[in-house]
Amino acid sequence: MSNCIFCKIVNGELPSENVYQDEEIIAFKDIKPQASVHVLVIPKKHIDSADALEQEDAGLAGRLILTAAKIAGQFNLGNGYRIVTNIGEDGGQAVEHLHFHLLGGEKLKDSF
Amino acid sequence: MSNCIFCKIVNGELPSENVYQDEEIIAFKDIKPQASVHVLVIPKKHIDSADALEQEDAGLAGRLILTAAKIAGQFNLGNGYRIVTNIGEDGGQAVEHLHFHLLGGEKLKDSF
Repeated sequence: MSNCIFCKIVNGELPSENVYQDEEIIAFKDIKPQASVHVLVIPKKHIDSADALEQEDAGLAGRLILTAAKIAGQFNLGNGYRIVTNIGEDGGQAVEHLHFHLLGGEKLKDSF
Repeated sequence: MSNCIFCKIVNGELPSENVYQDEEIIAFKDIKPQASVHVLVIPKKHIDSADALEQEDAGLAGRLILTAAKIAGQFNLGNGYRIVTNIGEDGGQAVEHLHFHLLGGEKLKDSF
């Protein structure tokens, strides 16, 4: 997707502070952190949102969750953390490329 | 896990308002909804949290996400929704059995 800023990050056309990368996944710090630790975990291939996942993407979707948990370990979030994905306008999705927010490093608010 | 309330729901020992069920997943309405639509999507097998997922659980973890998206369709959440999982104390995890919150039916707050 030529105008997708996350695809541009994947392609190295935009800078990012990466904390993890493998063949199918990249993770980088959110530029507007909402918590002490705020990392975005995304698939390198363009998928609009969790709503656009196909059955064949289940393994990838699961590895995004497992990767978020692994990164939580890197950041010593042993006291807990939160993984969130927003879909569409009601969900508050800001970029139309599937991303999981990893949030932690403090007691998070209970509200959704 | 004999004292896990979600295992008891899986086993039919506690009531739940189910909205989806298959061989490995069950989904039911949250008894204290935080949004117009608030459903919990859980694996039938006991896993403490996303932090306890093993590599071999990746497919299951992904299917939990895909199932949440499917249920969003059942509830006509075409305007958007949010999928959240809390881990540990800082994350605000209330029940130690992996569960994804599906939230929607209104414009959700931006905060995490």
